[in-house]
Amino acid sequence: MYRPLANIWKFNFNSLKRCYQSSKALPDLTKDRYAVKRGDYATIDDNDIKHFESIVSSSRCITDTSDIEPYNVDFLGAVRGYSQVLLKPKTTEEVSAILKYCNSRKLAVASQGGNTGLVGGSVPVFDEVILSMQLMNKIEHVDETAGILVCQSGCILEKLEEHVSNCGLSMPIDLGAKGTCHIGGNVSTNAGGLRLIRYGNLHGNVLGVEAVKADGTILDLMSNFKKDNTGYHLKHLFIGSEGTLGVITKLAIACPTASKAVNVAFLGLESYDALLKTFLAAKRDLGEILSACELIDKLSLEAVLQQYKLNSPLSEYPFYLLLETSGSNMEHDEEKISHFLESAMERGDILDGTVTNETSKVARIWQLRETISTALVKEGYVFKYDVSLPLSHFYDIVPVMRERVGDLAYRVCGYGHVGDSNLHLNVSCAEFNQEIYKRVEPFVYEYTSKLRGSVSAEHGIGFLKTNYLKYSKQPEALNLMKEMKAVMDPNGILNPYKVLPRQN
Amino acid sequence: MYRPLANIWKFNFNSLKRCYQSSKALPDLTKDRYAVKRGDYATIDDNDIKHFESIVSSSRCITDTSDIEPYNVDFLGAVRGYSQVLLKPKTTEEVSAILKYCNSRKLAVASQGGNTGLVGGSVPVFDEVILSMQLMNKIEHVDETAGILVCQSGCILEKLEEHVSNCGLSMPIDLGAKGTCHIGGNVSTNAGGLRLIRYGNLHGNVLGVEAVKADGTILDLMSNFKKDNTGYHLKHLFIGSEGTLGVITKLAIACPTASKAVNVAFLGLESYDALLKTFLAAKRDLGEILSACELIDKLSLEAVLQQYKLNSPLSEYPFYLLLETSGSNMEHDEEKISHFLESAMERGDILDGTVTNETSKVARIWQLRETISTALVKEGYVFKYDVSLPLSHFYDIVPVMRERVGDLAYRVCGYGHVGDSNLHLNVSCAEFNQEIYKRVEPFVYEYTSKLRGSVSAEHGIGFLKTNYLKYSKQPEALNLMKEMKAVMDPNGILNPYKVLPRQN
Repeated sequence: MYRPLANIWKFNFNSLKRCYQSSKALPDLTKDRYAVKRGDYATIDDNDIKHFESIVSSSRCITDTSDIEPYNVDFLGAVRGYSQVLLKPKTTEEVSAILKYCNSRKLAVASQGGNTGLVGGSVPVFDEVILSMQLMNKIEHVDETAGILVCQSGCILEKLEEHVSNCGLSMPIDLGAKGTCHIGGNVSTNAGGLRLIRYGNLHGNVLGVEAVKADGTILDLMSNFKKDNTGYHLKHLFIGSEGTLGVITKLAIACPTASKAVNVAFLGLESYDALLKTFLAAKRDLGEILSACELIDKLSLEAVLQQYKLNSPLSEYPFYLLLETSGSNMEHDEEKISHFLESAMERGDILDGTVTNETSKVARIWQLRETISTALVKEGYVFKYDVSLPLSHFYDIVPVMRERVGDLAYRVCGYGHVGDSNLHLNVSCAEFNQEIYKRVEPFVYEYTSKLRGSVSAEHGIGFLKTNYLKYSKQPEALNLMKEMKAVMDPNGILNPYKVLPRQN
Repeated sequence: MYRPLANIWKFNFNSLKRCYQSSKALPDLTKDRYAVKRGDYATIDDNDIKHFESIVSSSRCITDTSDIEPYNVDFLGAVRGYSQVLLKPKTTEEVSAILKYCNSRKLAVASQGGNTGLVGGSVPVFDEVILSMQLMNKIEHVDETAGILVCQSGCILEKLEEHVSNCGLSMPIDLGAKGTCHIGGNVSTNAGGLRLIRYGNLHGNVLGVEAVKADGTILDLMSNFKKDNTGYHLKHLFIGSEGTLGVITKLAIACPTASKAVNVAFLGLESYDALLKTFLAAKRDLGEILSACELIDKLSLEAVLQQYKLNSPLSEYPFYLLLETSGSNMEHDEEKISHFLESAMERGDILDGTVTNETSKVARIWQLRETISTALVKEGYVFKYDVSLPLSHFYDIVPVMRERVGDLAYRVCGYGHVGDSNLHLNVSCAEFNQEIYKRVEPFVYEYTSKLRGSVSAEHGIGFLKTNYLKYSKQPEALNLMKEMKAVMDPNGILNPYKVLPRQN
């Protein structure tokens, strides 16, 4: 049995949503906060609404402004659009009919999953039609023998985990937003998350995709098999392109066998150097059972403890390491963990630690990691960065950034998937602040680029990072991206102003 | 330490090559054996040769017919082109200069790795310029901490395995042709192989690609990180498109930690039903250490034993299952295996078996599986099929096919990666035989299509299967493939007559 899924994020996400619904807390409109110009798209009129109602019925064609508001604002409060119409299709055919119409009318469309994205990619920038996938939440089939799930793209990740765990399987992806995010959004953004170190990325785990092109063409790229080398592997065009090349409507996902034995260790360490040594020892000693390896620094943990009034199982240390193992034999796994922990403590790399396989305790330790993101949002506004950096320089940027922003910020902290070389650098403050913005960007991207890192390891580009793509992509690659966009969406109606560099 | 790599394939492959070099054994030219028409490409002249010599020097611009012959014929002897020029670039810049020139002259190009492909994709169909990658064999870098290898695309898989194993790592892919095949060919064809069940496919394990487009543009899509969500994931265009969209010149590959403990079990079973039960029990009992699960039927093993004068460790059974485990603790792994084997024998699913972790014995057992393909080729001509089928109907097609071809064939046998639902169906006979061809094709594809399987699980489409793509791909997907080809290679110079359906 896998650990029960923590519900804190879900609860917190919804309360944050409610908060944005009171006009006082609403962030500035994107068009006012950022330099961006509306594209040459048509504007919605009454005939359009009538046509949409003929496709999805009036109950799923929403035009009430206050009902639409939560779909116009992102989770961080970093961006806000002013769409006038929200559509909630239930079938691929409805998505197809909507896109076909929008393409012919040159109406821009913003597709939306759980709206948990962190780069402003999931809400309209101006008045794009919002295409919410939340009613496309049917689980079609689970093949227990082969370990394959087939479902619509609007299914919530946590629901899928619950469903497949009843069949002795597990989802290959897990992340803090699981209670709200959609599998379609996960795939569209190639979400990474907590299990990537064990099960690999979604390019490896997505077996089939059904997607609708901008012109309404339905592409059946489904496969119920782990191997299919018939022609170009087109499904990968939709993995990580953030809805700009098409709308994913259905997926086939490879699900690993659920682990019978899960252990979690929470360790206190003196330095990043000790943490790196411990990670390498874990790779060696825990081998095939290592399923998560997360770094948390002192200030990240402090935010969680303060905002959620939680207690840490350990006293205060500069760094913490959360390790998870998932295996098929508890006795074997415990032996491996004991050996690993004893050696690391003998070497003096680990100063203190706790290890558990009790379901409730496992969940409580995971809370400390999974709620860092929402705890920081509760503090006010967060500038979030998500970079891949060489392990030899992994944490250096945090003190450097602390120095740059000085007293302007509440908190500059770092946490993330050290097992995947992926750091989340966060700068929290009372509210969006241009001075911090200038001190942080583009500095963080230039710094990362010098180390040949990725300026967006897992969050994607969305709206907020389009100008920084150049730090990780060569001009020839950017040109090819534009060519792909032109082939797939010649009118540019799908998620405009996002992913591709803007001309402003 | 991983098992030492068997060299039988390598030896045998080269002897087969020598065999084709004597004109007696040469197969018919492709243009004569199959219905295919030369495209409207330019023909090589003396000026072209001079230009090529200026790029790669005369020593790497081969025009001697007998020197070119082995590059014109495929491993199976199914196809033979008549190229007049073979180029052996050493650098990406040379590949770029060659393609830029060929594109401007409208000269067709067949890129070639180790020439171990099984669908006629690796040799010219007519007189295409052969671009051999064999001298692009530099290993650039291994990051031991992060587990990442960076190398040129012409490196031989076995050499890479040897190299990374010295750094405590392992390649995520392994296949019978490892002594000859190139990593660039593996990636271009999205090769599956023996370890896919454990480490997943190449879309998950390839972190970065450098490729040259048809017009000579060098695309730097390299990344030294496991996570990079900056813009479209363009590298996947080159994984599995068999060199028709560009030529891969460099790769970054994620390499798992090498396993300290490797065990192999070779089991005899009475029926496919017992085999399926044993596989499911292995998934459950061996869990995270299961690293290969291969079915071998009686006639497949017989071919190996006869052709290589080998002895089987077991007496004769209708089916054999080869299971491999790779883990970090020999004692734990042996306990898991004992428990699994005892239960399966008690249930009567396994009739007999042997299990070993002695390096030489492990290698000898793997030989029985890895040399089936070459053993069948030694018998004469082989019609090879490589399908994904539901496990519930996995083996049914073998007796059906045996019935269809009757006495015309030496042998109709099935083996393959049952853990990945991937069957290799083979029909061997004295020489290429139109009557067998007609009885077998398109029947095998229709049969597979009815079960919604894949008509090419891992071998790809190449030249031999282009007309059968339609059994696994919808018209909308075929259209998008054509659009991609038009964007990437508007003159169609890269590997023409392959992958995309031909108009003949």
